[in-house]
Amino acid sequence: MWPLQPGYDYPRNQWYVAGWSHELNNQTPVERWILGEPVALYRDEAGTPIALEGRCPHRNYPLARSIIRGNALECGYHGFTFGPDGACVRIPSQVTIPAVCRVKAFPLVEKWQWLWIWMGDPALADPAMIPDHDEMKITSPGWLAVAALDRVLECRPQLLHENLTDISHLSFLHAATIGTEAVAATKVEVTQTDRYLRGSRFIPGETLTGFFAEVLGYDGPVERLVLIDFYAPSVHVALESFRKPGGEVIGEFRVHHAVTPAGPDRTNYFLAWSRNFATDNSQVTDIMNTVFEGVIQQDVDATHAIEQMIRRTPNPTELLVRADEHSIKGRRWIEELIAAERTA
Amino acid sequence: MWPLQPGYDYPRNQWYVAGWSHELNNQTPVERWILGEPVALYRDEAGTPIALEGRCPHRNYPLARSIIRGNALECGYHGFTFGPDGACVRIPSQVTIPAVCRVKAFPLVEKWQWLWIWMGDPALADPAMIPDHDEMKITSPGWLAVAALDRVLECRPQLLHENLTDISHLSFLHAATIGTEAVAATKVEVTQTDRYLRGSRFIPGETLTGFFAEVLGYDGPVERLVLIDFYAPSVHVALESFRKPGGEVIGEFRVHHAVTPAGPDRTNYFLAWSRNFATDNSQVTDIMNTVFEGVIQQDVDATHAIEQMIRRTPNPTELLVRADEHSIKGRRWIEELIAAERTA
Amino acid sequence: MWPLQPGYDYPRNQWYVAGWSHELNNQTPVERWILGEPVALYRDEAGTPIALEGRCPHRNYPLARSIIRGNALECGYHGFTFGPDGACVRIPSQVTIPAVCRVKAFPLVEKWQWLWIWMGDPALADPAMIPDHDEMKITSPGWLAVAALDRVLECRPQLLHENLTDISHLSFLHAATIGTEAVAATKVEVTQTDRYLRGSRFIPGETLTGFFAEVLGYDGPVERLVLIDFYAPSVHVALESFRKPGGEVIGEFRVHHAVTPAGPDRTNYFLAWSRNFATDNSQVTDIMNTVFEGVIQQDVDATHAIEQMIRRTPNPTELLVRADEHSIKGRRWIEELIAAERTA
Repeated sequence: MWPLQPGYDYPRNQWYVAGWSHELNNQTPVERWILGEPVALYRDEAGTPIALEGRCPHRNYPLARSIIRGNALECGYHGFTFGPDGACVRIPSQVTIPAVCRVKAFPLVEKWQWLWIWMGDPALADPAMIPDHDEMKITSPGWLAVAALDRVLECRPQLLHENLTDISHLSFLHAATIGTEAVAATKVEVTQTDRYLRGSRFIPGETLTGFFAEVLGYDGPVERLVLIDFYAPSVHVALESFRKPGGEVIGEFRVHHAVTPAGPDRTNYFLAWSRNFATDNSQVTDIMNTVFEGVIQQDVDATHAIEQMIRRTPNPTELLVRADEHSIKGRRWIEELIAAERTA
Repeated sequence: MWPLQPGYDYPRNQWYVAGWSHELNNQTPVERWILGEPVALYRDEAGTPIALEGRCPHRNYPLARSIIRGNALECGYHGFTFGPDGACVRIPSQVTIPAVCRVKAFPLVEKWQWLWIWMGDPALADPAMIPDHDEMKITSPGWLAVAALDRVLECRPQLLHENLTDISHLSFLHAATIGTEAVAATKVEVTQTDRYLRGSRFIPGETLTGFFAEVLGYDGPVERLVLIDFYAPSVHVALESFRKPGGEVIGEFRVHHAVTPAGPDRTNYFLAWSRNFATDNSQVTDIMNTVFEGVIQQDVDATHAIEQMIRRTPNPTELLVRADEHSIKGRRWIEELIAAERTA
Repeated sequence: MWPLQPGYDYPRNQWYVAGWSHELNNQTPVERWILGEPVALYRDEAGTPIALEGRCPHRNYPLARSIIRGNALECGYHGFTFGPDGACVRIPSQVTIPAVCRVKAFPLVEKWQWLWIWMGDPALADPAMIPDHDEMKITSPGWLAVAALDRVLECRPQLLHENLTDISHLSFLHAATIGTEAVAATKVEVTQTDRYLRGSRFIPGETLTGFFAEVLGYDGPVERLVLIDFYAPSVHVALESFRKPGGEVIGEFRVHHAVTPAGPDRTNYFLAWSRNFATDNSQVTDIMNTVFEGVIQQDVDATHAIEQMIRRTPNPTELLVRADEHSIKGRRWIEELIAAERTA
């Protein structure tokens, strides 16, 4: 789907965030659409999180409307029951269970408060491919990480990806909170590692005010480093690092954006953040949650508006400038992952 | 439309329930979509119910937005007026009325509190084809019949048909009220007569509780017979019959489900029920109305959920088991009726 | 789009009403869709109204969500800034501005309280083609003109055009207020000038009651002249003229209907009216505003109902009578304007 190549939507043999730990229990399944497929999420009696194909093969009833019976899901329509491996274990109206009566069971890894799902070939699901939560500073000593919010966006996933890889938008869309003129005015340097694609901006001289001054407890001059690392195809990690000119670090925070396509034109968005300063100050946590909630609402509104604009435009175009280098390289990376699956 | 054969929607040369007697009067027409066509329903001065094509041929204004003038409908836009036979009787701006200026008049038969409409070739409209209301126990001595409710479902008609022909769903979707484990666990016997396709379940030993015990005034052991008779293509009649083990009948009730396609993906649903016990007890009537209203809401929710699931599924499939024999034979019957019209 | 010829929607090299003077300021841009394109409307520092293409070429963000910076629009997403001529004057992240980075600037003429826009080839935009506001009796001495209301209709523009060119509907849709039986019963005479297509009805004997009697302060017999002049493709001017039989004019009012396609199936509607009696009586103004608001709501409801009916009809048809002569000639005129652009 545009702006990806025609017929390209998303790579499947990848890990995506499916939800939060706290969403799952042994009482009520959760339905989530991921890569165009319904998924029913729940926990078994031991507390292990389970992800089953969310559509009963009998009559297409949403399997997330099941009753959880022990470790299994009992379909709410005719009672077909599926175990954690997806195999049907009961058909109420007959004893014989056809072997074809089963749903897909998706590999699911619980890491920190995130549930990582693999929608592609289960044989290829290697947990080592999940972005390193220490490198992301989610589970690192000295960092406080917060599971902040989630949204379902009515837009194609690429609009959210490229919102995140062009943070020059901070200076305009988020001017009232986290944006300053300097972000857009600073040249982005794009570097690729084997794990992520980094966009880096170094702002040598800025004076902290507003939100930043409030949470950091410092309103003087700083050197500011702004990074955004894209772990294709599903996570962007932003870093804001503030240092006294030529001196010590004042504080750093990271924002972890998990982008999980619900389908070609709908997007699940999970947002966490972490910081290495004032980690025991709940007031700072409250301020950051409030500010990020407002910021993300602006991003939701912007991507919705663009999606509507594109849908009403017969042949959408775009005009790319140098600041879009990060976005375009990120886009190409996603396309390469899709292409590689097709030739595999 | 799936799960019917590609290009198959509904037979036209058949009677369908168009509405209730109490809906029609000589003051305000009613609009109803039936088999993809708008219909304007009203009564003439003698009280005879009339069904006209609900679209003014002049400018496509909904004819149900007319003023009733005597026996005729005066279009609310430019005043073109159509008599009960569909012929135009007045064009306000001119004296001459072109012969082509007319709407279809659909055969309409009022029987009990139901209005039966024939959307196909009027020459073939034989009222004897309407299901026998005595056989249905709607107008039979000793039976109290109640016009209970109607809904418009945002789903293809076949989902409602096959909800009704697989009542093993009672044990799960309606477990809290009219369902018991025994229904799904009991083998269905399917028999075809020249009038209906019957699915029959005999449950030799069950003990009445809850809703059943309350309305029947009996909470002991019973033999239970559950029938569902499909009068293709438009009515399903369920029978619940309770008998003391090897002895007398305690009571019976029937639920009459009229399924009238509004279009390929929308469905009118009219529900009546009748009983042969406590017929003068209005409290029992109230309980049954309340319970059935809740049950039907569950069916509405379920069929909506499946319709949404199917629409989001590129190539929907299903997995049929033995309990689906009734559904599949009913589906084939509808397809045969459609096919017969095409070769006629 | 039906009922225009297949592939025909609207002529582009024409003036259309884009909005009201009072809507535009130097603080907040207005978004309006016109002929399938988004337009951002605002005023520069001198108060001159500006119309720019409402889509940022960079990332398709709605340009009406800009901040107005002096005479320019600064896109609310990444800050690309466009001057009143459409040229980009700033890209925050770089110094060089590619020449292709620009939006269309549409010719815009402010006349009375109306803003007239030209969506086609700017080289052809001749303000002399705008309907004469003196001839329309908007800016004529002795006439009071009122900018009454605007609506966005969810219907194809032609339904509104042909609502206006067949005012026999007054006798039915608006029977409670401005309609009388005589309007539909009176033959329409259609005449074409070089500027407008006139439908004319002369009603020799009628007695004023209701709304007309109230605002004119006269409830006796009248000769009534009802005209509707179509200035293709965008304005209809209705005239109601009341005269004592064979004698003096009691009063006249005009209703100015500006029809501006938002797209093939959505329509902007701007309504003004003027009168030459009791021009300093604000109570009469209030009554006329209230009545016209009710009347226009009936037209909105009617065109919506027809649009829905047409969308649900596989191959829509119509049945034209003599009173439709005005509508059909108006329709042909629009088609000729479209055809002329194609061969130009």
